[in-house]
Amino acid sequence: MAVNLQIPDASDIHAVEGVEIGVAEAGIRKANRRDLTVFRLAPGTSVAGVFTRNRFRAAPVQVCEAHLATSGPIRALVINTGNANAGTGESGLAKARETCTALGALLDIPAEQVLPFSTGVILEPLPMDRLTAGLPAAIADLKAANWETAAHGIMTTDTLPKIVSRKVQIEGRTVTLTGISKGAGMIRPNMATMLGFLATDAGVAPALLQSLVREIADVSFNRITVDGDTSTNDSFVVMATGASGVQVQATTDAAYAPLREALASAATELAQKIVRDAEGATKFITIRVDEAGTQDEALKVAYAIAHSPLVKTAFFASDPNLGRILCAVGYAGIDDLDVTGTRLWLDDVLVAAEGGRHPDYQEADGQRVMKQAEITVRVALGRGTCRETVYTCDFSHEYVTINADYRS
Amino acid sequence: MAVNLQIPDASDIHAVEGVEIGVAEAGIRKANRRDLTVFRLAPGTSVAGVFTRNRFRAAPVQVCEAHLATSGPIRALVINTGNANAGTGESGLAKARETCTALGALLDIPAEQVLPFSTGVILEPLPMDRLTAGLPAAIADLKAANWETAAHGIMTTDTLPKIVSRKVQIEGRTVTLTGISKGAGMIRPNMATMLGFLATDAGVAPALLQSLVREIADVSFNRITVDGDTSTNDSFVVMATGASGVQVQATTDAAYAPLREALASAATELAQKIVRDAEGATKFITIRVDEAGTQDEALKVAYAIAHSPLVKTAFFASDPNLGRILCAVGYAGIDDLDVTGTRLWLDDVLVAAEGGRHPDYQEADGQRVMKQAEITVRVALGRGTCRETVYTCDFSHEYVTINADYRS
Repeated sequence: MAVNLQIPDASDIHAVEGVEIGVAEAGIRKANRRDLTVFRLAPGTSVAGVFTRNRFRAAPVQVCEAHLATSGPIRALVINTGNANAGTGESGLAKARETCTALGALLDIPAEQVLPFSTGVILEPLPMDRLTAGLPAAIADLKAANWETAAHGIMTTDTLPKIVSRKVQIEGRTVTLTGISKGAGMIRPNMATMLGFLATDAGVAPALLQSLVREIADVSFNRITVDGDTSTNDSFVVMATGASGVQVQATTDAAYAPLREALASAATELAQKIVRDAEGATKFITIRVDEAGTQDEALKVAYAIAHSPLVKTAFFASDPNLGRILCAVGYAGIDDLDVTGTRLWLDDVLVAAEGGRHPDYQEADGQRVMKQAEITVRVALGRGTCRETVYTCDFSHEYVTINADYRS
Repeated sequence: MAVNLQIPDASDIHAVEGVEIGVAEAGIRKANRRDLTVFRLAPGTSVAGVFTRNRFRAAPVQVCEAHLATSGPIRALVINTGNANAGTGESGLAKARETCTALGALLDIPAEQVLPFSTGVILEPLPMDRLTAGLPAAIADLKAANWETAAHGIMTTDTLPKIVSRKVQIEGRTVTLTGISKGAGMIRPNMATMLGFLATDAGVAPALLQSLVREIADVSFNRITVDGDTSTNDSFVVMATGASGVQVQATTDAAYAPLREALASAATELAQKIVRDAEGATKFITIRVDEAGTQDEALKVAYAIAHSPLVKTAFFASDPNLGRILCAVGYAGIDDLDVTGTRLWLDDVLVAAEGGRHPDYQEADGQRVMKQAEITVRVALGRGTCRETVYTCDFSHEYVTINADYRS
């Protein structure tokens, strides 16, 4: 029951010149599932990524960081579902490296030019034999027009594939951006989210791409949360092939700002799709905090609201039990918050001001907004000019069902 | 479906000399419910309390703090359910004061000698007329043997009353301790919890009682969590009548240590009862973090595990999906955590060590422990000698049902 999650028509999903994708059924955890995806990138492609800050970083995350740090080119990505290869110690690391070696041998590139990604159950050994046995089929499937298949290939508890694709004009040339993401639970990205892959045929100097991907993650994947659980495997990767002829070498280049805007917009849409398809979600909630003294303050308040099980179940019930939102603002961790300066809106409805319920607030108005599938909560703190926005969802029976049954 | 929540036999609930309690049905929110409770305390009783650190402190919490700060005696408590009188601004404050004035007039004591408490829905005006109309019936009911009735009188979504009562020998005299608590959701006390009242016939100097109540709260009510939501109304109050003849004036007195231990033990049991009766709880989980570098580190890890919806739903399902616990340890906020020094036990079963699954760990062993109603998670961080213990519960369909329906 995803919330207004659009899947583009096949004709609106644009291939990115320089990127080929192949998908196979390797039977990593269950049979008859597309669970193995390979990206092959043309020479000259810049690749940068950001990864989870969870201290239990999965083995593939550690290998990705090591391979990106070599400053050599990245020519391929390999993604498996069904097993996270996290909490697997030294043997898990060896398997992530072995995956790169196996794919490198088949594509005739060094192992260091491959980035590995895994998603699925934590604390289980990765079945290497099935993974490597599946690689030839994925390679045989490599083609530019495979984005929708890849969006399916990286799904776990996702109910729908997540794809954005658009063409923008930059410096008189057409630049294509196409990306996919996955994730529905264990979502509170810290640097990046579960898995997000965004490609463009603009060219970007590698060092610049690395700073750009961090900036973009901070307005997109790092601003969504489903359950507050920062995964061990979060990875967000941007690939810039340069095939469009548009090249960005420095932030002062004319093409930089429009490309940054286009990438950030595409990444935000990919991130929001994860919330729209969050486990059990029936509502898409935007939480905007204004008038904070610092960005950190704004984020604390936004996440306190976004993570409150009481707020989330009230949204699920369409119950304007809005004192729960004030309560979350109050415990968000701003020790010197003067609540008399705080105001709360639900969409356009002013609910509370001066530390209490606003005299004009009518329950019927709150009820009207709560019944919507998309709701904006706005809190003004009266402390400054900083502002942050976080995207989340409600908390339903279905979330419990999915997470109580995930492994069975 | 409370988890091993014992209700003492009536013969094991001991009155505390100097404390009388009366309960009435005032119809605050719903008819035919005991929703108004009055405590009358004998002259010479010391009273101290700790209250929520939520910045949206409820009106009665603010009035309690003001009245305790007068350093005059406290002679009465008045507690209503059905309405939290929180998020109610200036008019809510006036109503909390008016409640004290009304009860004071009936008991012939100044308003400043009354402490008011409210629990229920936030952001709704307190129906003063019904509350004051109910006071005479509560006063008519005042008697020493009313603890069990009072435990019912302060319940909201609680399914069972919460009472501890015991007699201990101190300095050759018998000292009685009896207390009640309530709370099942919006539970992550910060200073104290929803409502806890603990009385003893030992005598304690007022200033000493205030420092004692803080210490006790920090090992009892401040170590439980249900959903991470710190309420606007948390209050924990200790009353020491002195009627037993045991008197404590300073921490160096011989009676201090045994009395502190007895109070802390009773408060911990009262606090644990809240977790045992938590909304939808089917399991009682003890989370112990050892070998932390600081207490704060230990608490961060314990609460990250205790608040993870993924961990809590796995407990509900009795599913040993224990990678979710490692994941929570990893995102708890210890930036320099070396996961290779971390170990995880489920009761006596060693699950993970050296950053991954322990080679001897068998899923069947994890499964055996997960099926129990009471489970201890133990994490050793390998960083120092600090230790903390937090008590929580699982996360079930029933929690969603209760909180989606709470106001209807």
